[in-house]
Amino acid sequence: MAMVPEGDDRERLVCTDCGYVRYDNPKIIVGAVCTWQDRYLLVRRAIPPREGLWCLPSGFMELGESTEAGAAREVWEEARAHVDLTDLLALYNLSHISQVHLIYRGHLTSPACAPGPESHEVALLTWDALPWDRLAYPNVAWALRQHRAMQGRTNFAPLGVPDDAPPLP
Amino acid sequence: MAMVPEGDDRERLVCTDCGYVRYDNPKIIVGAVCTWQDRYLLVRRAIPPREGLWCLPSGFMELGESTEAGAAREVWEEARAHVDLTDLLALYNLSHISQVHLIYRGHLTSPACAPGPESHEVALLTWDALPWDRLAYPNVAWALRQHRAMQGRTNFAPLGVPDDAPPLP
Repeated sequence: MAMVPEGDDRERLVCTDCGYVRYDNPKIIVGAVCTWQDRYLLVRRAIPPREGLWCLPSGFMELGESTEAGAAREVWEEARAHVDLTDLLALYNLSHISQVHLIYRGHLTSPACAPGPESHEVALLTWDALPWDRLAYPNVAWALRQHRAMQGRTNFAPLGVPDDAPPLP
Repeated sequence: MAMVPEGDDRERLVCTDCGYVRYDNPKIIVGAVCTWQDRYLLVRRAIPPREGLWCLPSGFMELGESTEAGAAREVWEEARAHVDLTDLLALYNLSHISQVHLIYRGHLTSPACAPGPESHEVALLTWDALPWDRLAYPNVAWALRQHRAMQGRTNFAPLGVPDDAPPLP
């Protein structure tokens, strides 16, 4: 049942038989803006939500992995590509859905890529060919624009939700 | 029971009655190195684990808050102090315990502080007075040393686990 455990200050799910407390905490999404020369790696989602729209390779971080390992795993799972991550591009707090997005930046080790089981299609696109009107989420556009803004710069603080982003629901 | 849900590639806890899948993912620890002039804010833990040892204000990020809000909340809960966070000092992957630590840097808005319910004691200590041999966790020392190394610098990539840290278990 939902109750405030002793010494706590908010409701948790507690088993009244054994006292087990189920803590629900925010989840981490790991992903990457990956480039090959002047091209950006995007995947077209084959699963809901937003099936058919374009996304950066990204997904829920799993137990036992680092944030970088998780981002590289997602690149492999969704785009069958290998990436050398160089740095943390962005940290987005999406607190209305209790998610923290950690988006890395990296170079593909080769242009080889192919759709994984959760992707209809994978593409390496120049800036001018990016499908701005068919992106799955606003944060895909944030990360792509911030990646472009940070070209040639290193050792910077990760960027956040852009000031001009519409208010979150 | 533990099984691999359809379309997934690893075991999850699944309810065989209703199909509910319980996803366990890494947890985020938020905390802060807070200073007042040349002094560092530490709290002495009043709860296990490591009761009696010194720590930075930090704890599990909660649903519905941002990483910065969570770090500031922990400073209030454990040290009854108000902090203006300035930037993200460090991101530590502790993948052996599936934790990601996000440690911010900030200035206290006044030297007022007091132990919260989970602290025996709170202190504002100069660098030379820091209790290096009574710190609760290695990452407390990492963050303090990295804070000192980054004094006067802004807009840098968050630091990670130091290269000279002993291997994690």
